[in-house]
This record gives sequence, structure tokens and C-alpha cells, in this order.
Amino acid sequence: MTFSLDLALLWLDLAGVFFFAVSGSLLAARKQFDIVGSLLLASLVGLGGGVIRDIIINAGPPAAFGNPIYLLPPLLATVLVYFLFSSVQRFTSLLTLFDAGGLALFCITGTLKALTAGLNPIAAVLLGVTTAVGGGLLRDVTANEVPQLFDARDLYALPAFLGAALTATLWHFEGFNGWTAGLVAAVVFAFRVTAWRRSWYVPLAVRGWHRLGAESTGNLRARD
Amino acid sequence: MTFSLDLALLWLDLAGVFFFAVSGSLLAARKQFDIVGSLLLASLVGLGGGVIRDIIINAGPPAAFGNPIYLLPPLLATVLVYFLFSSVQRFTSLLTLFDAGGLALFCITGTLKALTAGLNPIAAVLLGVTTAVGGGLLRDVTANEVPQLFDARDLYALPAFLGAALTATLWHFEGFNGWTAGLVAAVVFAFRVTAWRRSWYVPLAVRGWHRLGAESTGNLRARD
Amino acid sequence: MTFSLDLALLWLDLAGVFFFAVSGSLLAARKQFDIVGSLLLASLVGLGGGVIRDIIINAGPPAAFGNPIYLLPPLLATVLVYFLFSSVQRFTSLLTLFDAGGLALFCITGTLKALTAGLNPIAAVLLGVTTAVGGGLLRDVTANEVPQLFDARDLYALPAFLGAALTATLWHFEGFNGWTAGLVAAVVFAFRVTAWRRSWYVPLAVRGWHRLGAESTGNLRARD
Repeated sequence: MTFSLDLALLWLDLAGVFFFAVSGSLLAARKQFDIVGSLLLASLVGLGGGVIRDIIINAGPPAAFGNPIYLLPPLLATVLVYFLFSSVQRFTSLLTLFDAGGLALFCITGTLKALTAGLNPIAAVLLGVTTAVGGGLLRDVTANEVPQLFDARDLYALPAFLGAALTATLWHFEGFNGWTAGLVAAVVFAFRVTAWRRSWYVPLAVRGWHRLGAESTGNLRARD
Repeated sequence: MTFSLDLALLWLDLAGVFFFAVSGSLLAARKQFDIVGSLLLASLVGLGGGVIRDIIINAGPPAAFGNPIYLLPPLLATVLVYFLFSSVQRFTSLLTLFDAGGLALFCITGTLKALTAGLNPIAAVLLGVTTAVGGGLLRDVTANEVPQLFDARDLYALPAFLGAALTATLWHFEGFNGWTAGLVAAVVFAFRVTAWRRSWYVPLAVRGWHRLGAESTGNLRARD
Repeated sequence: MTFSLDLALLWLDLAGVFFFAVSGSLLAARKQFDIVGSLLLASLVGLGGGVIRDIIINAGPPAAFGNPIYLLPPLLATVLVYFLFSSVQRFTSLLTLFDAGGLALFCITGTLKALTAGLNPIAAVLLGVTTAVGGGLLRDVTANEVPQLFDARDLYALPAFLGAALTATLWHFEGFNGWTAGLVAAVVFAFRVTAWRRSWYVPLAVRGWHRLGAESTGNLRARD
């Protein structure tokens, strides 16, 4: 099998844009935005992480502005949600699944783009995670929600970190190709979705604090 | 008439910065920020869209940092609002009018800057819209409001899109000059203000949903 | 004393990153984020302002992505808050003190980096203020709080502006070295903390409005 890295990267990137764009349109639907707002939120989520990535790599205008094909996935997502969403029953599940798909693909493409641009592996992993979580963060901040990224009830950044680290490792040992890319994406997707369904979690930010202890810290909110 | 594109662009851009800066200071006034916060929000709204545009075009430091004259409009806006606002009766109207003025000018200058930097017409239109809606989006997100951009009760992005598309078309057919620029700005401004006053709207993000149907989707907010 | 500007800048920058990172982890603790969210918010606050600065200066990838040592302060801050925070009594004081430390150092390093990159002094001061307030603004917007920057009850941006202006002045008269840098940082820190403890404030955004007048403007929130 001949493996064209650039073409594979483009397709993976476009698929990631589409998944995130659907999650944006779904949130727009839930917040009663109109169809233009749906298109805008789909574009912001789908393209935002990649634009941040390309600005940081600093290699010419971001791909989303250089190649008009990047505008198709948000358009498609908006149309799909417009026609198909009214029959959807399990809204949050759907949003989380599409979001997980975007996460699984973007942690790979973000890391790869950084590596091919010559960044060191640590920076590349960091940029992969930034790309993967950036779009969703923009989506939630813009729609005035507490970011899913910071929801202590499930894992969000860890799967992205795992995917970025696996990608950088495979790249280093020259084991990165279409098959391993698909495998990494599947692992990240499965990790993210399982963590969400089983409510896996990591410790809170402070040792000895527990998830039910909100009231015990309520007094900390006052200005002391 | 000799038409100096660069100089005209600078003046249009500065006027747009001023309009958006006034909208920032007005929001700061309503939110009871102090005068330093008013200056900061005026600067963020007036200069934010253009800084994002210049970072994406990637042609040296953004104009707002390269040319100190860009700092004058936010200063002027802060002083104006400080001395004149206490007698204002129709706050929301005023904010919307100034915001519409900024929108009308920035969709033109954003598109033009992208075209002169060599971006393709589709990317230029996209960047024009980004520039026009970016500052207002930063304003509303920073001040912790739901962005006006996503308000389903009126049109916000469509006028910007129209202005950017008209600008790119005029440029392509070499019909862009001071007169046509003024005409495009007037059309965008009139479109935006009329849409706001008459409550024009487009369909919601999902087919078959209606504006009064908020309660019917309330159950979707629970984690299902 | 031999004064290596680059090395001094790196150390000051890293110390600023650490102070801001602690403020991010403290806010994550208060908001009941988990330990991964704590690390992410620490990184966003500690590195965000500098990344914005480096993107605007446009001299290659941001320092945070080019030099892995920048990842240590957020890691350290997360671990420290995890082990030590449960015994903390005066939460807001601590967050404000660390935030003030970051502010005092970043207004200096931001201005210096801009000056050494060849920006004019006015732009350098502006970029110094942007760097100093940028991280905290990202922290508060991301965690869905009204930014401390806009809190009319105390001064936040003025100390940063003073520090940036002093740095640019010292640089211009070739009086900038390790001692004067420390002095400027101490002045900014003392100014910020004193303003906070004594509730110093500047006038509101509109002449004749007073801090207790919230109810008199409540009717302005309606769409008129």
C-alpha cells in the first residue's frame, strides 16, 4: 500500500472537522440558535482548533483559510442537523459521540502537523492536545457553558493526551501509517466514550477533597 | 479622483475601530465597569477583530501594534461615553447602531486586507466575516453575555457576509473604489439595522422547531 | 555584575508562569475541577498570555512550545496545590497574591520581549499590558467567571500599565538591568496588592454614576 501522508492527513483532518462541526450544530440546536448561528458555531468548533494550531506552528495562513474544501464539513453538518435532528432522542449521547470522534482525529492530525513542521516531540504532543481540546473549548466558552473539558465527572483531556503521545511515539519509531493511525483513533475514541459511559474519573484538584464535598468549600467563595 | 487604496483602507479601518470601541464602552457602562475597564473593553472590541485578521494573514505584527494611531479611537470612545452617556435614554438602540457601523466597515476592510495579501476570494470573504463579527464576539464573551451574534431574534452575520461578498465581487471586476466602498457600507448598515428593528429572522437550527418551543426541548438539557 | 538579558528574561518569565499557574490551579480547586483540569487551567493561565504575546510579535513558534522547560511551572503548581491546598484558609487572598506576582513579572517580560523584537515603545507597553492581563483573562473567561480585570472594586490593569511604562522608560535610557527589573516588579506587586487591600478604585465608566447605583440602571437592560 502506498501511503501518502499529506493526503491521509487532509482526509483525517476533514473528518475531524466534520465530527466537531456536528457537535457545534447540535449545541446550537439545543440553545435555540438560528441556522446561521448553527453554521457559525459549527465552523468555530470544526475549524477553531486547527486555526489555533496553524497560527502557533506559524507556517503561512491556516489551512482553513487556504483551502476552501475546509468549509464543506461545517456546511454539511449544519444541513444534516437541520433536517435530521428533530427525530433525535438522545441528544447528549450524540453530541458526546461526535465530539469524541473529532477528539480522536484531531489529537493525531495536530501532533503530526507539528512534527512535520519540525517542532520537538514534547511540543508536538502539547500542540496535538491543544488542537484536540481547543475547538470544543471555544464551542463551550462561546455558547456560555462551563467547558466539557473541565467537567470533573469524566475524562476528556487524558484520551487526547494518550492519542498525541502514541502518535509521536509511532512517528519516532517510523511506525506511523494509515493502519496505525486508524488504530490510534479507535483507541482514543473507545477510551473517551468508555470513560464517559462508566463515569471514570481522576482525583480532584486538591488531595482529600471529594466529589460530594461542594458544600464544605462553599464558604471559600466569599471574599476573605 | 485619485483613489489611494491604502489611505482609504486606513481611514475606514479607524472609523470601524471607533464604532466598535463605542459599543464596548457602552457595554462597560451598563455592566458598571470602571473607566479603565471601559478603555480595555473598547480596545478589545475595536482592535480584537483586526488583530485576529492580521494574525491569520500572517504579514508581520498586527496593525494595531504597529501603528500607534490605532490607540486613539478606543481612547476617544471611552472619553465620549464617560462624558455623554449619563444623558442617554435608549441604550440598546445606541449600542446596536454603533455595532452595526463597525460591522459595515470591518466586513469591507477585512475582505480587502485579505485580498491584497493574496488570499483566494472565498478565504477573503470568510476572513472579512471573521473580522466583522470577531470583535463583537470577544466583547460579549469577555463580559460574560450570550453573544449578540447567536441571538436568534435578529440577523447579525448575514449582513457581514453580504458586505464581504460584495467587496470581493467589486474587487474581482475592478469596480472597487471610494464610492462603491461607501455604498457597500451603507447597504450593510441599512440591512443590519432594518433586520434588527423589524426583527427579521432566519429559520432555527432544526427544521420544524419554532421560536416559542423552548419548553419542548428543556428535557434535552438533562444528561440522558 | 554581568547581566545576561536573555537568561534573566527566561527566569523572570518562568517565575511569572509559575505564579499565574498557581492562580489557575487555585481557581480549579475552588470550582471542583479534577487534577487534569487543574493542570490544564494552570497551563492556560501560565502560558496563555505569553503565547498571545509571541504570536503577535510573530517571531517563530511561541516560547511555550519551543522550550519544554515552560511546562514545568504548571506541573509544579498543580502538584503544590494538590498537596498543600487543603490546609489553606484564606483562599481569595492567596489567589490574588499569586496573580499579582504573575502580573508584576509579565508586564516586564512582555514589554522587554516586544522591545527586543523591534516594536516601537508604545506598542511594547501595550503588548506588555496584554501579556500581563491576558492569562488571567483567559482563566476567568474559561472558568465562566466575570474577569477580575473588569472588577470595578479594585485596580488591576493600572499596575500592569505602570510596570510596562517603567520598563520601556528604563530600556530607553539604558537603565534596565537585574536590579531595576526587581525594583519595578516590587513596585507593581506592592501597587496591585495595596490597591486590592485598600479597595482603591478609579471612577466608573460614566461620569456621575456611583458604585451603589446598580438599581438605577437596571431598566437599561431591557430591550428599548
